[in-house]
Amino acid sequence: MTAAAGFEAAGVAVGLKSSGNRDVAVVVNRGPLKAGAAVFTSNRAKANPILWSQQAIGDGVVEAVVLNSGGANCFTGGFGFQTTHQTAEKAAELLGVSAGDVIVCSTGLIGEGGEEFRAKVLDGVVQGVAALSADGGVAASEAIMTTDSKAKRAVAARDGWTIGGMAKGAGMLAPGLATMLVVITTDAVVDAAGLDTALRRATRLSFDRLDSDGCMSTNDQVTLLASGASGIAPDLDEFAMALTEVCGDLAQQLQADAEGASHDIAIQVVHAASDDEAVEVGRSVARNNLFKAAIFGGDPNWGRVLAAIGTTGASFDPYDVDVSFNGVRVCTAGGPDRPRDEVDLTPRATHILIDLKTGDAEATILTNDLTHDYVHENSAYSS
Amino acid sequence: MTAAAGFEAAGVAVGLKSSGNRDVAVVVNRGPLKAGAAVFTSNRAKANPILWSQQAIGDGVVEAVVLNSGGANCFTGGFGFQTTHQTAEKAAELLGVSAGDVIVCSTGLIGEGGEEFRAKVLDGVVQGVAALSADGGVAASEAIMTTDSKAKRAVAARDGWTIGGMAKGAGMLAPGLATMLVVITTDAVVDAAGLDTALRRATRLSFDRLDSDGCMSTNDQVTLLASGASGIAPDLDEFAMALTEVCGDLAQQLQADAEGASHDIAIQVVHAASDDEAVEVGRSVARNNLFKAAIFGGDPNWGRVLAAIGTTGASFDPYDVDVSFNGVRVCTAGGPDRPRDEVDLTPRATHILIDLKTGDAEATILTNDLTHDYVHENSAYSS
Repeated sequence: MTAAAGFEAAGVAVGLKSSGNRDVAVVVNRGPLKAGAAVFTSNRAKANPILWSQQAIGDGVVEAVVLNSGGANCFTGGFGFQTTHQTAEKAAELLGVSAGDVIVCSTGLIGEGGEEFRAKVLDGVVQGVAALSADGGVAASEAIMTTDSKAKRAVAARDGWTIGGMAKGAGMLAPGLATMLVVITTDAVVDAAGLDTALRRATRLSFDRLDSDGCMSTNDQVTLLASGASGIAPDLDEFAMALTEVCGDLAQQLQADAEGASHDIAIQVVHAASDDEAVEVGRSVARNNLFKAAIFGGDPNWGRVLAAIGTTGASFDPYDVDVSFNGVRVCTAGGPDRPRDEVDLTPRATHILIDLKTGDAEATILTNDLTHDYVHENSAYSS
Repeated sequence: MTAAAGFEAAGVAVGLKSSGNRDVAVVVNRGPLKAGAAVFTSNRAKANPILWSQQAIGDGVVEAVVLNSGGANCFTGGFGFQTTHQTAEKAAELLGVSAGDVIVCSTGLIGEGGEEFRAKVLDGVVQGVAALSADGGVAASEAIMTTDSKAKRAVAARDGWTIGGMAKGAGMLAPGLATMLVVITTDAVVDAAGLDTALRRATRLSFDRLDSDGCMSTNDQVTLLASGASGIAPDLDEFAMALTEVCGDLAQQLQADAEGASHDIAIQVVHAASDDEAVEVGRSVARNNLFKAAIFGGDPNWGRVLAAIGTTGASFDPYDVDVSFNGVRVCTAGGPDRPRDEVDLTPRATHILIDLKTGDAEATILTNDLTHDYVHENSAYSS
């Protein structure tokens, strides 16, 4: 977060988490450029901070981002929206900027966000602004954790400029778009339109292809801030590639920390008619509970893969599809090939290769298996 | 199955199941009418018996149905299709009818169906035809069980005519359409076109609204046979209503026996803009793993319900939706209402009421919770 020049950050503890851990983060852009772009959950049920931030990002100027864990401030009515508004106002007042240039992000339980929540968040803004520092990135990344077992950060350094990012997310990991809270900073000189283009390109190839449990969040947001402090204006393609690297790194960290998972599954779909069809096929398999449970059980059940592909509208012949599990082709042309017992599914890293034999496009979807621990954590923990 | 006059059935054991239980069923229509209709999985990855039966049903004449458990004969290549073909030929030869009027249904593991499978199924046809009797319906319903804990049968008797049916299914319960094997018989006088109309109407309101685990099968089929043996030609609407009653009864039995489930959840969506939108909303909630795990954990997590609704294209205002769990309205107008702890989720029967406040349409989707046992059964058992 503070790897890029021109940014300060802080993470403080104000009692939103019963654990006493850090729960409010503040990230401030000290400029000279104050450009920003953001992408939001495509869930139509949007939390108050999403409704606020969609307005705030409109002019491409972002001075600061305030994030809290311990409460999603979603479906909390007019009172909840006022809480978000007051959060931005408080930060703006302390920083001497306009409230309309302050992005707000929240994560935690839906439907909770009363007087006590508001008081703590506003307290967090005061304490967070007071604690801002050029090496506050680690503390900020800790403050946005919910059921995450570890903080998630990534950096891509180029010749004279840098992109840094932090993310949180361990459940409700399915796109619309983002499905997590992410803040990315850069000291490169890129205007708001360029940031927007690069961010959409990067998220489409990273967070949009992470689908841990098929459940789309109400609060997801990826925000990208540019300070221009390096004085270097890179080529936009080069910038987008570096940004995709950071987003891909964070997406893999989210997958690796998914609630209750015992396998990180990469579903690579090749020879599809288009990128969109490759994604559709990969996502359909990623969302198939029977397939996900089979991976947990060490069973290379290619029949469940074909059954999932069959529910899509993609171009393919069900009787001309190959499927490999961890390098062993168990299905050729829609029929049995190598024996199932040649497949070793004990490693956490799992690779499924689906050859549609239709075109030249490909995509890889990241997902997780369906485990006892997933059921346990999501039946015992309210989110 | 044999509650309606004019039908004989049998269920025999030929070693397809390692348990030694019955595994091949034969149902024969003795007439005088030989009308039939069928609906099939909409999964594009279709098993060999589906490919065969879609052709066989074309002329609206069905003499017999042969069903086997212990192997889906799906993705077993040309050899597998020949197995299905030979199954119909063998039954036709023994019964003195045309092979094109014999429907074949299979259920069990995908990708298995070699020489041994073929020999056993053909043996089952021989033994089954020899064992046909007017009270063989119970044995037939036992022969199609896979992980089902009990056989599933239903009857609707009207003035002088009767509809009887049997079903199997405990996993991969999600529509396309049917998601199970079902055979229904009637002694009413209804021609093939009438049967088709009534069957589509009935399945749309019953099996199509059962979505236990979101996973669509490759082998599902619902077949309806009319013998006309009662000599009574009922009004088609009256017939369709009785048929819907039988299908609804069987669908509830399938839900109640879903693998590993601890709750039978009825998601009732009211005041939707259309039937289709009510179904779309109900299905989206039914497929949300976080919602399903919450029900298992006894948590009336209405936030997860709203998050699932938000992924649909249905007409509604996220901030004007009410949600009740077992009669307690925990969410009003997209905000908290009654405290969560007023909801008792200990009974197996669970009722979710979603009021979209948009139109006059409604639909109820049946589903189950996501439990440790579901993960266990589907990670340990290959299907």
